Parts: sequence; C-alpha cells; structure tokens
Amino acid sequence: MNASARSILLLLGVSLLAERSHAQSAPRDLTLAWAEVAPGVWRAPAGTPERVSLLGIAGGQPQRDGLARIGNAPFPLSRTEIRAQRVDGKLVLRFPLGESEQLYGLGLDFRALQQRGSVKELHVDHFGGTDNGRTHAPVPFYVSSAGYGVLIDAARYVTVYAGTAVRTDSKHPPVVRDRNLDKRWSAQPTSDAVEVLVPASGAMVYVFAGPTPLDAVRRYNLYSGGGVLPPKWGLGFLHRVPTLFTAQQATEEVAQFAARGYPLDVLGLEPGWQSASYPGTFVWDRTRFPDPDAFIADMKRRGVRVNLWMNPYVAPSSPLFATLAPLSGSYTVWTGIVPDFTLPSVRTAVLEHFDRELVRRGVSGYKLDEVDGYDRWLWPDHATFPSGLSGEQMRQIYGVAIQRATFDAFRARDQRTYGLVRASNAGAAPLPYVLYNDYYGHPEFITALASSGFIGVLWTPEVRSSRTSEEWLRRMQSVCFSPLAMLNAWSDGTKPWSFADVADPVREVMRLRIRLLPYLYSAFARYHFDGVPPVRAMALEPGFRVEQSATTGALSSTDNPYAVATQRDVRDQFVLGDDLLVAPMFAGDTTRTVVLPSGRWYDFYTGAFVGAGEVITVKPGRERIPVFVRDGAIVPLLAGDWLHVPAPGEPADLELRHYGAEPGVFRLYDDDGTTFAYERGEFSWTPLVVSRAADGTLRGETPTPPSGKPFGYRTLTWRMMTAR
Amino acid sequence: MNASARSILLLLGVSLLAERSHAQSAPRDLTLAWAEVAPGVWRAPAGTPERVSLLGIAGGQPQRDGLARIGNAPFPLSRTEIRAQRVDGKLVLRFPLGESEQLYGLGLDFRALQQRGSVKELHVDHFGGTDNGRTHAPVPFYVSSAGYGVLIDAARYVTVYAGTAVRTDSKHPPVVRDRNLDKRWSAQPTSDAVEVLVPASGAMVYVFAGPTPLDAVRRYNLYSGGGVLPPKWGLGFLHRVPTLFTAQQATEEVAQFAARGYPLDVLGLEPGWQSASYPGTFVWDRTRFPDPDAFIADMKRRGVRVNLWMNPYVAPSSPLFATLAPLSGSYTVWTGIVPDFTLPSVRTAVLEHFDRELVRRGVSGYKLDEVDGYDRWLWPDHATFPSGLSGEQMRQIYGVAIQRATFDAFRARDQRTYGLVRASNAGAAPLPYVLYNDYYGHPEFITALASSGFIGVLWTPEVRSSRTSEEWLRRMQSVCFSPLAMLNAWSDGTKPWSFADVADPVREVMRLRIRLLPYLYSAFARYHFDGVPPVRAMALEPGFRVEQSATTGALSSTDNPYAVATQRDVRDQFVLGDDLLVAPMFAGDTTRTVVLPSGRWYDFYTGAFVGAGEVITVKPGRERIPVFVRDGAIVPLLAGDWLHVPAPGEPADLELRHYGAEPGVFRLYDDDGTTFAYERGEFSWTPLVVSRAADGTLRGETPTPPSGKPFGYRTLTWRMMTAR
Repeated sequence: MNASARSILLLLGVSLLAERSHAQSAPRDLTLAWAEVAPGVWRAPAGTPERVSLLGIAGGQPQRDGLARIGNAPFPLSRTEIRAQRVDGKLVLRFPLGESEQLYGLGLDFRALQQRGSVKELHVDHFGGTDNGRTHAPVPFYVSSAGYGVLIDAARYVTVYAGTAVRTDSKHPPVVRDRNLDKRWSAQPTSDAVEVLVPASGAMVYVFAGPTPLDAVRRYNLYSGGGVLPPKWGLGFLHRVPTLFTAQQATEEVAQFAARGYPLDVLGLEPGWQSASYPGTFVWDRTRFPDPDAFIADMKRRGVRVNLWMNPYVAPSSPLFATLAPLSGSYTVWTGIVPDFTLPSVRTAVLEHFDRELVRRGVSGYKLDEVDGYDRWLWPDHATFPSGLSGEQMRQIYGVAIQRATFDAFRARDQRTYGLVRASNAGAAPLPYVLYNDYYGHPEFITALASSGFIGVLWTPEVRSSRTSEEWLRRMQSVCFSPLAMLNAWSDGTKPWSFADVADPVREVMRLRIRLLPYLYSAFARYHFDGVPPVRAMALEPGFRVEQSATTGALSSTDNPYAVATQRDVRDQFVLGDDLLVAPMFAGDTTRTVVLPSGRWYDFYTGAFVGAGEVITVKPGRERIPVFVRDGAIVPLLAGDWLHVPAPGEPADLELRHYGAEPGVFRLYDDDGTTFAYERGEFSWTPLVVSRAADGTLRGETPTPPSGKPFGYRTLTWRMMTAR
Repeated sequence: MNASARSILLLLGVSLLAERSHAQSAPRDLTLAWAEVAPGVWRAPAGTPERVSLLGIAGGQPQRDGLARIGNAPFPLSRTEIRAQRVDGKLVLRFPLGESEQLYGLGLDFRALQQRGSVKELHVDHFGGTDNGRTHAPVPFYVSSAGYGVLIDAARYVTVYAGTAVRTDSKHPPVVRDRNLDKRWSAQPTSDAVEVLVPASGAMVYVFAGPTPLDAVRRYNLYSGGGVLPPKWGLGFLHRVPTLFTAQQATEEVAQFAARGYPLDVLGLEPGWQSASYPGTFVWDRTRFPDPDAFIADMKRRGVRVNLWMNPYVAPSSPLFATLAPLSGSYTVWTGIVPDFTLPSVRTAVLEHFDRELVRRGVSGYKLDEVDGYDRWLWPDHATFPSGLSGEQMRQIYGVAIQRATFDAFRARDQRTYGLVRASNAGAAPLPYVLYNDYYGHPEFITALASSGFIGVLWTPEVRSSRTSEEWLRRMQSVCFSPLAMLNAWSDGTKPWSFADVADPVREVMRLRIRLLPYLYSAFARYHFDGVPPVRAMALEPGFRVEQSATTGALSSTDNPYAVATQRDVRDQFVLGDDLLVAPMFAGDTTRTVVLPSGRWYDFYTGAFVGAGEVITVKPGRERIPVFVRDGAIVPLLAGDWLHVPAPGEPADLELRHYGAEPGVFRLYDDDGTTFAYERGEFSWTPLVVSRAADGTLRGETPTPPSGKPFGYRTLTWRMMTAR
C-alpha cells in the first residue's frame, strides 16, 4: 500500500470514529438461586421476571401426588454451567449441552421433532409452512435425550438457539476445518450450549429432572397441574357442520349418522349459530336456530352434545359490547374489540353471559378460533391492554387465558368440557382443549401429533376434505387414533360417507375409535395422574433407539448449497397410550417402514408377531391403519358396536385383548365420565392381569374392580390375540 | 346462572386478581421536531435514537446538487397525524394512510411489490421463500402511491404494520360487517395508518416529498449519497468458475469464452483462491494459484478483471487472526471470528491486508458472501461486539459496513469497484455492490429486480444451472437485462454454451448486453446524479395505472379459509433505464401479458408499434426476451460486436436507435469509466436529439459532445427503428 492510500484509509477510520462508542452497558452476570419446588423440579428467577407468566395464566396447581410418585432425583445439569446475563437490555440464558444430546420440544412442530441445530423464535401464530417458531403452541420448554427438561416461563417472544451459537470462549470449541478440501467440514459446527434470549427484564426458569426424557416430560406435565381428563364423550366422534346450517339441517345430518350407522358424540356448530360473526355477538341466531333449548335437548336425546365455534372478538351489536369496551385492548380484530381476559371483570362478564346463554342450555364446549394469528389480523405487538399487558405478552397468553376462563366456568358447574383451540402455551396440560389449524398437510399433521407430547398439549389432525377417496380414508384413520376424532365440514360439507367407495372402512375405523374408549380413557387418566402424554413421539419411548448420526448432505447450488446433512428423525409414527404404536399411511403409499422400539411387537388386528427392535416394512392394504402392540400388553375395548361412547350408567361389556408371549398388567381407569368427582377421589383403577400358569400358558385373571368406587363395565371377556 | 355457580365464577375472578396489575408505564407521547435537512427531505428524532444508524454506517453524503435540481416541495403528510410514543419500553410510530394509497418498499421482496396489508419484521436474512421481512435488504423505507416516502433509520428488527392495525380510537374506522351473510365482509378491514414498532429507545425518522413516488425514491437515493456509478467493465459479463478451479483451469475457461465468441469482462474466483475457507485465511492458495500476480496480469491482457469470493469470518490460521481476535464479536461463525467492522482499527488492518494482497495485485472487487444469515450460522442476537453494538444491531448493518469499508479502500486508490454482496440496508445506493442469494426461483428473481428500485439497492438474477435449455436461455436473457450480468458456476460448472441448442441465442443476448453499455452507463449516471433507479417497478412509472381494486377471493377450507382477496400486482416486468420496459419469459411459457404504461410503445428489436397504455399479449419465440421502448425514445448502442465493454481509450462507434413517432432527447453520459474523476467534474452529458423537420419527418441531429470533457465514442450513427 502506498503512503497516500494508507493515510486515506487511516483517515477513513478516524472519520467514522464517532460510531465507535455505541457501547451499551456491558453484559452483566445475574445470579440464579435454584429452589426445589417439587420432587425433581427446580425453579430460579433470572433477572426480574415480569408479573405475567405462562404458568400463572394457565393457572394449574402442581399435582403433588403424582410428582411424589416419580420421586426425587438429583439436579440434572451442572449448576455452574447454567448462566444468566443481562445483555442489550434483555435476559440471556445459557444451558450446557453435551455433544451427543438431542433436543425435543420448543413448540408444536409440524416438520421436525429433533430441534438441535435450530433457532426458534417462539411466537404464537398460525403455522404457515415454515418451522421458525411461529406456531400454535410455541412452548418454551425443551427436553433432552439425556433425560431432563428446561422451561423458560416468559410471556414474550423468546428466541432459543438450540445448540447453534458457538462462543469464542467456549470450553468445547468445534474443530476448525477447511471447506475447500476437508470432507468433514460441516455447515453446523458443534455448539456446547442452548442459549435463550428473553426480550424482557427477566423470567422464571425451571429445570425438570428425569432420569428418562419421559420422566422429565411427566414432571413438567404434573407440575403444570397434570394432564386433562376429558369427559368420556369427548373421546367419541365429533362432526362439525357447514357454517350456515340451520337447526333443521343439523338435525337431519345427525339423523343421517344414526341411520347409516356412523358413530357421533358431538355436533359442532360453526359461526352461523351466532346472529353475526367476525366479529361475534355471542347470541343465537333465531332465524337459523329458532329454539336453541329445544335443539340442544333434541340432540341430547340423540346422544349428541353441542359444541359452539367462537372467536373472542366482540361486535358492537353484541350485548357484551358495552361492558367489555372499556376492558378491551387498544386495537380491534375484524372490527371487534379484544377483551382483556386477564381481568377478572372480563371473565365474570363473559362467563356469566356464556353460562346463561350457552352452558345452562346444555352447550358442552367451544371451538376457540383465531386466538393464534396471523399478525395482519390480530392486534400489533405494541397494542396496550387495560391490565397493563403489552400486545406481545397478550399474544403469547391469549389462547391459554381463554382456555382457562372457559374451563373454570364449566368446572364451576361440576361439568367437564372438551373443545378446540388454536393457540396454547406452557402449562396447558390440564386445559380441556385440543389444538387444530388451517394447514392441511397429512404428514405434517402426524408430526404435530408426535410433537405435541413433548410440550403438554393435544393436537387433532382434523379431516376436512380430500382429493381422493384414498386420502379421505387415510386421514379418517389417522384422526380416529388422535386425541380428538373429528370431521370438520364447516366449509366443504363433507360427511364420513362422502366417498362412497371407502364409506365402509371409514365407518369401521370410526366404530373402532368408540370401542377403544376404555383404553383411551385410561391413557388420559395416566396423563392426569401420572403426567404421561397420551400421544407421544418415539423419542419418549424408553426402548427406542435410532442411529442419530447425520447423513452427509449432497451439495447442490439450488437445493443444498451448504451440503447440510440430514438427521434421522422418526416423525411419521407415534405411541398412543401405554402400548399402541400407530404408523399412519398417507395417500399414494402402499407400503411404509415402521421403526419398532426394543422388545417384541404384534399386529393390533391379528395379534401376529411383526418384529422386535427393528425397522420393518408393512403393506397394510387400504382398509387398515397400521397399529402395533407391545409384547404382553392388554388392550381393553368395548365389546360390540357402539354409535356413541357409553352414557353414564349405560351398561357396557369389555373385550380384554392380550398380545404377545409375555404376561402383563393393564390398569383400567374409570369414573363417572362427566364430572369432577374424580378430583374428590371418586375413581377406580382396576388391574387387568394376564399371568403365566404353572404349565407355561398365559391366562387372563378375572378382574376385581375396587368396591365402592365408580366402575361402569358389566362383563369382561379375555381374548388372547396371539396364537401360541 | 345459579347463585353458587355465580359465586364460584366471581371467586375465580378474585383468585386471579394478582395478575391484574402487570401495568408497565402507560404509553407516553413523544414530540417529533421536524427539520428540513435537504430540499423535500425532513428529519426528526423520535425518542432517543441509538448512536448507530443505518445511514451512518452506509456513510454517504447527501448529493445536494441533485436534491436541489428536484427542488422544494411541501411536507407531504399531516404533521399532526404522525405520532410517536414510547410503549412497552419501545418506540412506536404512526403515519397516516389514505384509503386508496398503495405502499411499496419495506425491503427486497421476492413475492410481492404492494405491501399494504402486510406486516414485515425487517430482519437481515437469507430469503427463505416466505415474505415475512427476512430478506437480504430489509430496508425500513416505504414509498406511497400518493407520492412520498418514509424511512425509519434504526439498526434494529423493526416491525412495520403496513395498513393492518386498526385502533379502537381510529378516526376512520372500517365498517363492521357480518361474515355470516354480508358478501362484502373482508378478512382485512381498512386501516388508516402505517404503524412501526422499533425495539429501541428511539430512531431517526425521515420523510421524503414527491410529488411523484419516483421523486420520493429519488430524494431518498440522493440523500443517501446518490446511486452507484459502476466502472464500465462492471456492466459487461461476469463469469464465476467452480470453487476449486486452479489458475490454469480458470485461464482455459476464459480462453474458451474468447474462442467461442462469448463476451467476458470479469472472472469470479470462488473460495478455492484462498488457502482455506469457511473460515477464510484471505491468503492465496499457492497450490491452485502459484503466481497470483502473473495470473491477474494475464487476465488483464485478455481484457478480464478478477473478482474474489470471501466471507468475513477469519480462520485462526489467517495472518489477520492475531490482530483481529480482540476486535471481534463474542461468537464464531463457522469457527471463524467475526471482526467488528465498525471499529477503525479493524478496517485499517483488514484493508491494509487486502490492499497488499489483493488490490495492489489488480483484484477488481469482491463477492461478500454470507453476511445475511441464516440465524443458525451467524452470531446470535445477544452477541456482543467490542464497539458496544449488540448482535441484533450488527446483523442489520454488517453487510453495509463491509460494503462501505471495501468501497473506501478502492476509492483510496481512485479505482472503482463493482462486486456482489448478500446483505444490505438503508443508505446503500452509493455502494458498488449488487445483491444475490441462494434462492433460485426465476419469477421471484424478477420480482426482486422490480422491488430493488424502491429501496436503493441493486439485484442480480444470477444464473447457475437449469433443468432445460429453455430455462437456461430464459434465465440468461433476464440476467443480461439486470444490473449485473452473471453466470455463477461455482457449484455446477456451467458455461454459457452448456446447453448446445441454445448456445447461439445465449451468445446473442450476451453480446446485446455489451452493446447496451452506453444506454446502461447513462442509466447508472442518472442513478448517481439524479437518484433515478436504473431498474424499477412499474409503480414508479408516471404513466402507469393498474386497477388496484382487489378481486374477491374464493373460499376454500384448505387454500383460502378467509377468502382473502388478491390484489393486482405487476411484478413480472420492470423498467430498465429511462425508456426500456423488460418483460422476461419463464420456462414453459410461450406467451405472456405485458402491462404498458400510457403512451405508445414499440418493440425493441423491430421498432414496430405494440400498444398504448394497455395490456398486450406477446408471443416472442424462444430467441428473444420481450423488450419495449417508449415513444420518442433514443437508445444508444455500441456498434458492431464486442467481447468486452470498451477499455479506456479504446475507440467505439455508436448506433443511436430512435423508436416511435415522436421527437426525443437522450442525454448520453460518459467519463473515463474506471476512476472517481467524475466526482471531480470529469464527465460529459451529450444530448442526442431527434427533432421534427419542417416537412414533419423525424431527423437525428449530429451530436455535439461537450469540449474538454471525457467522451469516448468515435462515430455516432442514427437508426430510425420505426418505419413511417
């Protein structure tokens, strides 16, 4: 460089010197004082947590009995390696991460279960096809394959760097490689930390011990209040009719279900039940529903509950408007005001109205729509609310606040509910709502099912329409093995029999859904009392091992310019209850692979052995969704055919299926099925036992229901599914 | 509601009362004191602007002569309707928005030009297929169809609600409609404001007057320093060879261009020129390039400049490492340190090294890769830098800081440069870099071209590979009508003649590119001196009117559940220079529609009349990209065939084409083509005039270049393209 060029460069340096000291205060270390708040659950405030918290809004009380049953465990991480700092006016957290750990959770995910290597900006929103943290339940909780969980309880757009950021002062720095020539070069050098950016003054941080990943999830669910126990009818079949259906049209459709022999437990009415919608009046439309009481009573006689669609944005013409206007946010949504559901006065006003107009009339629950997104429809992040919450905070908690409020209103009547919601967050396990959305990818819906079990939420892969009868059948099969079996015909007017050539197998799987009630209900009881998610990913199965080593990516200037490796991620199968492995089929496929956990597995329908701890290929035919059963498992089904789940007091017989070569025990749960008496001890667990006789044969023992406790089943008949 | 249920509800309300007062300080109004800082340009600090700003980093000085030529204008908005508030610790701005205004800008956009109705979180990132504000140049500047522009100068992730948020206290509230029955219901009620959320203590805000949208853009560009004037060779053809090519392989490829008659002005070397990459050493690899000086000198003899790929992350083995390590951020990128380019000492160290190792040897410029994203590869938002900038701030300015620093180093040698960069932001108009990315949608590339003109950046729809020869030809045609005509074969090893059956028309359009130099160079001079973007969307054309009324959306439960209407958005054609309208063809299409602005338009190739202010359908055949010329326009081309743009002093003849039935004037710009002498007055504007003679015929006058000023053309020959 010649002297003049150099002096010019130096001059340039000087001329920009004014920019030099933007220096905010340097990062400041914050102390984390961990307190064990339940067995294997620790909490520490980091910085100054805001007054609103996700768990606080969800409002659950820790299920201390269940937590005690899991028992104590040591703090699962090195406390000194967990760091909190104040940086750029925000809270930054760092958690250690071992080289071989895998991470799961961080929101309801539709594309991937493994989160290591991703950055998620957790933000309540409609899932729009991109896995960026904007999702219906962006729960800031992750669980590690090393057997612990971490929750950042902040009602903010939290960004999680899940093993991506590499500090210059890392104690485990990745190897430096030359991309020019070193084949081992990777676009993603190994990071030794999970880092979390909370754009707030602080947050409450929780750590959940294992020892297994499932244990960590269980502790998280139990600390949230234990999982929801739906009313029995909630586990039947739900059908939503087109938006402007009248009472008469709805009645005719319900009659068709009965006439054609398709089960139905809940009828969903869409916006047309209201006198106006978007924004809503929360008042029955008397042209379409002249006599709501008579309509609901007639439905009840037919064994069918009524569920009502709503979103929470209130029309000026609603009787609620005058009361709520001063208690609402500073922006409208679809010209409706946005009530601040964190205010007791809002909850009281809304729930009194709901109680009078809806619950008293017999309405069983709600579909709470559009509490998730999109940005361009909801309030902006800088909206203000009378409670003092910002738009950002309200966005993160709105769905949960409404779930909680409506749940409490039903509970006040000692009546369970089970409905739908489009937004949730941390602490939602006890809330009687199932997530759904507008997206409609069948494979993504199954990944969401598997994903839901990491974060204490439920998901339904609802069926709306299909291009082909094959797709219709495959979707109906999937939804019948989910937390909420639903056909949502709000726009398409579809019916289970819409595709004539698959009308029979659709009816068959819908009936199977009803027959599964004793098994499913016990699975949900496990969710409630033990924190075990009824639907969960394979990564939560103790005996499940998949080679996690990444496969090398092929370089492509258009598709993969950084030759990013793909990780093995088993996201198209899931576990339902204790012992069923469900492997849905997607339209166009005639075969699929299934990754079996360790131990021997059997075909659900035939009892035949299918494999043990291996990857199998199945060709199930069109009629059946592949379902597999663990060795020694007992699956209680309703005997006979049912068009509704049994009503309270309705006699029902059970078929107790045993699979495999091993003895086993199933704990059959029962209670009244509709009230909260189970919270007052009114429930029963009945052991169903298959033992090995002296001659080596397996024999089902005669079950002994506990006396003086609810038990709704009449005869119980063993059926040994696996031939000797 | 019975009394007990009611009392329980009330109790629930009370029990959650603790949540009630999260109350942060209520929104606080901030004063905006507007100062006119240039003709038609006003500035006001809102709150306390941070010390780092986008314009400050870009470092341009307002082009006051050009601004004076546009002249004064009244403040284009109602000052009292512009509001600033402090909300939730952040700055919120509100600007009035008329019911029929359309909005453009808000970052380089690949899918849409019209922004009204969108929410953009402006964030430097790779465009990943979703129009959410994450893009290579998320410039927080918008221009309204009403003829003004607004810039929020904040180096933060700014969220813009572009006519989406509706306040409860709006003075122009949208009509409340019932979605059940009112066909006029819209998912997007009309908002009367643009609202901006700046997550910082404040920002500098600018308003640019019109009267036309193009005038507002011109004022923005001139205030930024005026648009870049590239060296002439930068407007030729650039070819990038595969990443591990040796000097010998590169030389052979360059020889092939000459032997086959394909133009070539710049050779791009990819990571393999360095001894290691990702992270880089910034040192020549002596196995692949044993004698860089000889290689570059040989290239220069062949009329070819050398451009070098780099990203700024420094390997431990680099000679720069020891100096830069203490001057870098707290995280590594691909195991390389991240120098803080806002520090003068970093710029001095880096540029001294570059000057010695690269510029002194004759390197003409750089391709500055990966300064944009992705989140999982770059530093986290909470990274810290020695200058005091946060990771978020650095993310927003990094690309611009490096553009500025490298530009200044070339300028210190009085040598122009022209290169590539993957991230930019506000104020970048004077910087000699063109944006590119890894995305590869041809239609999206064209929308990006149109979009770039709103926000003071340049974009190249680079060609890498193609599935078919038709696609190859269509992409090559497009890139030859862009700011940087480039084939980037870094991964695919493609060459212009890779598809034999289109090798001839590819050569033809590449040669046409070179012949267009006088026209293109004048267009860039207009960018520099007058702020007129050389490539721009139709919405900036004064005579362009498209019916903006939205078409009703069709309801679909899967594709459009809110029946969202689609707006007319002409995003597949653009204007190049003063008078050319380019309408690219995409593979698979044989015809397309073209929306012509008012006035009569003519075919570029034949001079034939094609239409006037109407939508025409063209069927151009494979060989040609549709290009249209305004009535009376004059297009100067190099005469004859060229394999490089003319070197300084190389004699060149011009063909002056006139189109249409009207007289016209074109101002032909010239200067030495390679230095900054033009900044010292060493340039010429030569009027090319077609006038109407007394007999009514059109006649090209003999041009008179200004004496004593640079003018590199020898003979100028008129060619009247449109037959009388």
